[in-house]
Amino acid sequence: MPLINTKMILDGRRVARSIYETLAADISVLGTAPGLAAILVWDSPASIAYIAQKRKYARRVGIDFEVFRLPESTSETQLLQTMDGINADDRFHGLIVQLPLPKHLSRERIIRAIAPEKDVDGFGVQSAGNLFFGTDGYMSCTPKGVMRLLEYYEKPVAGKRVAVLGQSDIVGKPMALALIAADATVLSCNALTHDSRELTLASDIVIIAIGVPGFLTRDRVRPGTTVIDVGYTRVDGRGVGDADFENLKDLCDITPVPGGVGAMTVAMLLENAYRAARESLRRGVRDGNVR
Amino acid sequence: MPLINTKMILDGRRVARSIYETLAADISVLGTAPGLAAILVWDSPASIAYIAQKRKYARRVGIDFEVFRLPESTSETQLLQTMDGINADDRFHGLIVQLPLPKHLSRERIIRAIAPEKDVDGFGVQSAGNLFFGTDGYMSCTPKGVMRLLEYYEKPVAGKRVAVLGQSDIVGKPMALALIAADATVLSCNALTHDSRELTLASDIVIIAIGVPGFLTRDRVRPGTTVIDVGYTRVDGRGVGDADFENLKDLCDITPVPGGVGAMTVAMLLENAYRAARESLRRGVRDGNVR
Repeated sequence: MPLINTKMILDGRRVARSIYETLAADISVLGTAPGLAAILVWDSPASIAYIAQKRKYARRVGIDFEVFRLPESTSETQLLQTMDGINADDRFHGLIVQLPLPKHLSRERIIRAIAPEKDVDGFGVQSAGNLFFGTDGYMSCTPKGVMRLLEYYEKPVAGKRVAVLGQSDIVGKPMALALIAADATVLSCNALTHDSRELTLASDIVIIAIGVPGFLTRDRVRPGTTVIDVGYTRVDGRGVGDADFENLKDLCDITPVPGGVGAMTVAMLLENAYRAARESLRRGVRDGNVR
Repeated sequence: MPLINTKMILDGRRVARSIYETLAADISVLGTAPGLAAILVWDSPASIAYIAQKRKYARRVGIDFEVFRLPESTSETQLLQTMDGINADDRFHGLIVQLPLPKHLSRERIIRAIAPEKDVDGFGVQSAGNLFFGTDGYMSCTPKGVMRLLEYYEKPVAGKRVAVLGQSDIVGKPMALALIAADATVLSCNALTHDSRELTLASDIVIIAIGVPGFLTRDRVRPGTTVIDVGYTRVDGRGVGDADFENLKDLCDITPVPGGVGAMTVAMLLENAYRAARESLRRGVRDGNVR
């Protein structure tokens, strides 16, 4: 009797669609369109593609998405002035700066200049602090998307062993924090980790974000492990993840690339933008701004 | 031939003494005594003992240490008013609130009310965010003390497997973050962790902060593992750690309780208070406050 493949593809696009439906409904009753400003300094093909995708879904759910294109030679002062203007502009409830930035600009200083209440990418110090304590605030969109995807497919993390490969500020670190806040046992690994295979083999869930195509091979996981692939590298004109999807998909529940985590990241950004608009309206009401 | 015990006691008191010597010298040339305010709302014997210890060493290094004792029935409003006064008072460069608080007070709201530049315990949102990014700020004193102790005894953590047992906001979580920032592989465990023994056995360093006396037994670590015991529970009138010290000390380099991490925590608090005073003086100079 042949083995029946009961493994699931964790379909980020499908979950994102359901989030967009909810968002569109919520926004339609908000009374005003959330405004999201995106600054694009370095117009690499990848950055342009990311911005285009964010705009497409923003418009679909009813968010005003405005792109501020600055020349690659923009000085830090010019960029900060543009940001100050958006920070002070009530039409914009969220402000994102498309990464990466040209080398002459300090990512740290730029990100810190986003007003905390408009930091819908969740990259700032205040957002990281809120994530640490599990209090309100905008959680970094990729880890938030991963948590939501796991929830959707009813994969609890409390008491589970979750290996997180990669320790970046944008994904690996906030991912580890979010998992700790959810009572997971977290095995956080980096490029120096000795025998990461031993750790992934001992895990119930493996989240990989290292940018090494196909790194997570079949011999590195137990059957039944859930694999969340955050990797995305352009190889021969197509995006490739960090997991060896073809050889894992009959062994593991796994996210595809594309169509997995990436789709969730955009959905979480737009959800944060909606929340920022809602909070802004609440502050207005609370401060007596009643008509 | 008998086995020679070459295992080390990681002596927190000794390291703290060397830190106090440096601090006293640095403070003597600062031109002004750092001022540290401590609010004590719940005067349990343990809290009083902690405060007394902080005061003793503060005075020794030349820090003005002032205790504000409030009755246990203090309302949140009263406490916040006291804090506002200290936040606005130039004599105080640091402000700490002795924990735990009586149940009717919200720890979260109280901690958030400490001015970030005076948060020398490193418990606030801003401090957690800075820890996340590895940027300047006051790191939570216990994890900072552990990192310093490991440095002093030349135990690098980069590329090492470090099990952290406990995921509290005060110790376990910031400990995991500090280790990730230092390129360690971090195995973060909690009470739900399945088979934590397998993880501690696979680790080079075990840091335990769970408040279960003697939990870390000889069968849970490999010979040669470094054990950092953050636990402190009063049993029959004396403080007891989370590690079975007597049965581990010929197997592992290990911190004693007391005299290990606790001594380091106080030293780190006072170092943070000195840094806060220095930063305050620098801001004065930068802002043109020149005589």
